[in-house]
Amino acid sequence: MSVTAPLGFAAAGLTAGLKPSGTKDLSLVINTGPSDAVAAVYTSNRCKANPVLWSQKVSADGHARAVVLNSGGANCYTGDFGYETTTLTAQTAAQLLTETGTDTKPEDILVCSTGLIGVGGQDFRDAIVDNLAPLVAAADTSVEAGQAAAEAIMTTDTVAKTATREGSSGFTIGGMAKGAGMLAPGLATMLVVITTDANVDQTVLDAALRNATNQSFDRLDTDGCMSTNDTVILMSSGAHDATVDTDEFTGLVKEVCLDLMHQLHVDAEGAHHDIAITTQGAASEDDAVTVSRSVSRSALFKAAIFGEDPNWGRVVAQVGTTSAEFDPTQIDVIINGVEVCRASGPYEDPEKVEFRRQVDVVIDLHAGTDTATVWTSDLTHDYVEENSAYSS
Amino acid sequence: MSVTAPLGFAAAGLTAGLKPSGTKDLSLVINTGPSDAVAAVYTSNRCKANPVLWSQKVSADGHARAVVLNSGGANCYTGDFGYETTTLTAQTAAQLLTETGTDTKPEDILVCSTGLIGVGGQDFRDAIVDNLAPLVAAADTSVEAGQAAAEAIMTTDTVAKTATREGSSGFTIGGMAKGAGMLAPGLATMLVVITTDANVDQTVLDAALRNATNQSFDRLDTDGCMSTNDTVILMSSGAHDATVDTDEFTGLVKEVCLDLMHQLHVDAEGAHHDIAITTQGAASEDDAVTVSRSVSRSALFKAAIFGEDPNWGRVVAQVGTTSAEFDPTQIDVIINGVEVCRASGPYEDPEKVEFRRQVDVVIDLHAGTDTATVWTSDLTHDYVEENSAYSS
Repeated sequence: MSVTAPLGFAAAGLTAGLKPSGTKDLSLVINTGPSDAVAAVYTSNRCKANPVLWSQKVSADGHARAVVLNSGGANCYTGDFGYETTTLTAQTAAQLLTETGTDTKPEDILVCSTGLIGVGGQDFRDAIVDNLAPLVAAADTSVEAGQAAAEAIMTTDTVAKTATREGSSGFTIGGMAKGAGMLAPGLATMLVVITTDANVDQTVLDAALRNATNQSFDRLDTDGCMSTNDTVILMSSGAHDATVDTDEFTGLVKEVCLDLMHQLHVDAEGAHHDIAITTQGAASEDDAVTVSRSVSRSALFKAAIFGEDPNWGRVVAQVGTTSAEFDPTQIDVIINGVEVCRASGPYEDPEKVEFRRQVDVVIDLHAGTDTATVWTSDLTHDYVEENSAYSS
Repeated sequence: MSVTAPLGFAAAGLTAGLKPSGTKDLSLVINTGPSDAVAAVYTSNRCKANPVLWSQKVSADGHARAVVLNSGGANCYTGDFGYETTTLTAQTAAQLLTETGTDTKPEDILVCSTGLIGVGGQDFRDAIVDNLAPLVAAADTSVEAGQAAAEAIMTTDTVAKTATREGSSGFTIGGMAKGAGMLAPGLATMLVVITTDANVDQTVLDAALRNATNQSFDRLDTDGCMSTNDTVILMSSGAHDATVDTDEFTGLVKEVCLDLMHQLHVDAEGAHHDIAITTQGAASEDDAVTVSRSVSRSALFKAAIFGEDPNWGRVVAQVGTTSAEFDPTQIDVIINGVEVCRASGPYEDPEKVEFRRQVDVVIDLHAGTDTATVWTSDLTHDYVEENSAYSS
C-alpha cells in the first residue's frame, strides 16, 4: 500500500522515456480533497534544483493539489530553461486537472525531479510535458496506481519503498520514497510523498512532518553529501471524518518516516554493511546526534567496517573532532555488543566482535542521559565504482 | 639535507624493533644551542595521543632541548601506562643528554609517536627506552644523521621528506616530515620537525610557525579525518650569529612547510590524482578556504575524479553546503583549464577536460577578490583497500 491508501488520493506512474532503461519515470499524486493542506521540507543545500526552487515557493502557503515527480533527470543547474520546464509542468498539470473537474492553479502543483545533475534540456521537457495528459488520465485510487507511482520515482533503488499506518480513529497515512540512502550516484536525491486522510490543519501537518524528518531522514547520513533535490511532502485530504489525536498522528507520521528511512538504508547502493551509530550518555540530544553524525562521516571508520575491522580507535578519534560535552579519557565504544573500548582504552578483545550485515556501534560519553542514532553505510569498492563510473 | 642542515643540531635514527619491517623506527633531534627556543602546533583533536598531551604541556614555556620520535606505534588511547611510557622516555633521554654534558630536564624533551592507535604496551615501552642510549650515542651533525632521523619516522611513506632554505644573512632552516597526506591508515599522523640556527626569539618562532602551518599543512585536507598525533615543531639553536629579517624568516619557514606539504601530498597512499582546489573571487580568505575544504571532503567528487569524470555538478552542490558569501546562480567551475560550468550551468564541453596525475579545480564565486587553495586526493579502490585491511 502506498500514497493511495488514505481516502481522497489518486495516483499514477508511467514511462515517459526519460530513463534509458524504459522503466516508469513519471509519477503523479493528486489530492482530491476536501482539504488541500500540505507541509514540505526541502534540501538545505543553497544551490537547489529548479523543482525545489519552485515547490518551496508555491508550498509556502500550505496548500497544494498535486505533486508531479520524475526520475531520469534532476533538472538541477540547468538555468532559466530548466526553471521554465518546471513552471510549464505545473501549468500543464493544473490545466489538465481543471479540465477533469478539479479547479487547480499552477501554484497548487508541486514538482520533484531526480536523476543526474545537469540533465534538463528540450528532450527532458518534452518527455514530461507531453506525457502529463496520459498521466492524469491514468490516475486512480487503486493499490496498483499507488504502486505505479512509487515505481516511477525509482532511480538506482532495487525496490519501490512504501509504508502505511492507521490511526485508532480510522484515519490512514500512506507514503512512498525513493533514494539510495547513501550510495546512489547523483547525490542520492531523496524524494518522499506522504498522504493522509486525517482531518488536520496545516499547522499540525507541518509540526508532525518536521518532528518526523528530524528524527528519521535527517539521521540517515550515509556519505555526508547533501543533495540538491531532496524533498519530503505531507499532504492531507481531510477525507476521513473522525477526530484526530494530534499526538497519535504525530507519532504515526514519524513511524511512516522511520519505516521508509530504514527501507532506504538497507537498499543503499554499494553498501555491504548497514551501520547504526548510537551515542548514549550525552549531555543533550544535539550532542548525541553530533557525535553519531561525525563518526558516520569518517571515511576511515567506514572503510574499517567494510573490512570487518572493529577499529574503535577511529571512532574515538572522530568523537574527538566534535564540540560535544565529554571527558576524552572516559569514552566507551561497544561494537555488536562487545565493549572493545572502555574509558578511551582497549578493553574486550576485538576478535570477539562478530560481523553481519547489520552493525551496531554504541558510543557512551558518560556526560548525561541523552541518546540518538544516526544510520550510515560502509565505504566499499562498490561505492567507489558506482560513483566514479556513473556519468562517464 | 634535513634537520642537521642548520648549525647547532645533531640527529640520529636507528632500528628499535617497533616495526615488523625491521626498518628504522626511533629518531632523535638535539638542539645543542646556545638557544633552546621552540614553537609547536598540535592536533586540534580533543582525544589526543599521550605524546601530544606530554609535549603540549612541556613546550608551553617555549623551551625544548630535544625531540624523540618513533614510528611503529601511536601510543594513543593506551591509558595511564601509555602516558607513563612517554614520561619515562623523556626522563631517560634527559638523563642521557645530561650525562653527555648537556644539562637537560625531562620537561625539555618533546616526544612524538606515529603508527597504529592502541599500540603502546610493555614491548613498545621497552623497545623505545632500551634504545635511547644507543640513539643518543649515535647522534651527530652530519647529513647522514639528518637523513637517518627522517627515515626513522616513516610509516607508509615511500620516501623520506626533507627540505632546507637559506636566508640572505646566512642562517639556515631544515625540516623533515612524515605522513601520507591523506591515505595513510591509522589516521594519517603527520609529524614535522623544523630546525633553524637563525637567532630569533620564541615569539618570532611561534608567529612564523602558525602562519606557515595555517597556509600549508592545514590546507592539505585529504580525507577529513583529524589525527590524534599530529605535531609540527620548530626549534631554534640561535647558533648563527647574524641579524635576521623577521619577514624573510617567516617567509622561508612557510616555504619549507609548503615544500614538505607538497611532498606529503604527492606521496599520499592510494591516491591516483593529486587535486588542487582553488576558490577565487571569494569575499574573504576564510570563505575561500571553507569552500575549497568543503569540496575536498566530498566523497562523491573525489570518486568522480578517480574515474576522470569532470563532474562539476558535484562541485557546485558541495559549494551549496557552505555558508560562504555567493550567489547560487553565479558559480563558475574550471577543471584543468576547461570552464565546464559558468553561472551555475553547463558551459564548455566536459569531454575537453584532459586528465593527468595533477588535477586543478578552480571555483569562482564572483563575490570578492580573495583566493585560497586546499589540496586533496581522489577516492580510489586503493584507499578503500588500504584502510579496510590495515589492522585486521
